[in-house]
Amino acid sequence: MSEAGHNAADDRLRLLIERVERLEEEKKGIADDIRDVYMEAKAVGYDPKIMREIVKLRKMKPDDRAERDMLLETYRIAIGLDLI
Amino acid sequence: MSEAGHNAADDRLRLLIERVERLEEEKKGIADDIRDVYMEAKAVGYDPKIMREIVKLRKMKPDDRAERDMLLETYRIAIGLDLI
Repeated sequence: MSEAGHNAADDRLRLLIERVERLEEEKKGIADDIRDVYMEAKAVGYDPKIMREIVKLRKMKPDDRAERDMLLETYRIAIGLDLI
Repeated sequence: MSEAGHNAADDRLRLLIERVERLEEEKKGIADDIRDVYMEAKAVGYDPKIMREIVKLRKMKPDDRAERDMLLETYRIAIGLDLI
């Protein structure tokens, strides 16, 4: 035990925790930047919710997106959502 | 309408989406770095779940943390969790 009342293992743990905390701060900064982009988009007339949907859809593989579109349509028809 | 079949507004939308996508990539990279720190900690004998709990507790204001500790203990006693 050192004079400070903690040992090398305690220091190692604290350093690991602090590394996580710095990275969490960085991640939060980027999340804020993302929010800013959506706010900028909204300011010029785009709908942030729809944009988030687009980002989600663009991330999918074309086959997965096609299957998702088909299933979603099937389910919408099945429960009578927006039938004409 | 330009020859490419899209206009300036379409370009602006696409650029906004691409900015979000780049930021999301960065955010994912940092999330991966955080996971790596927890894996490194685990490799030297620390419990990642407990470390995440510590990170959460350190983020709180002392008063909030004290209130949380007290309420948690009260609830644990109330439902007989780990009573001796």
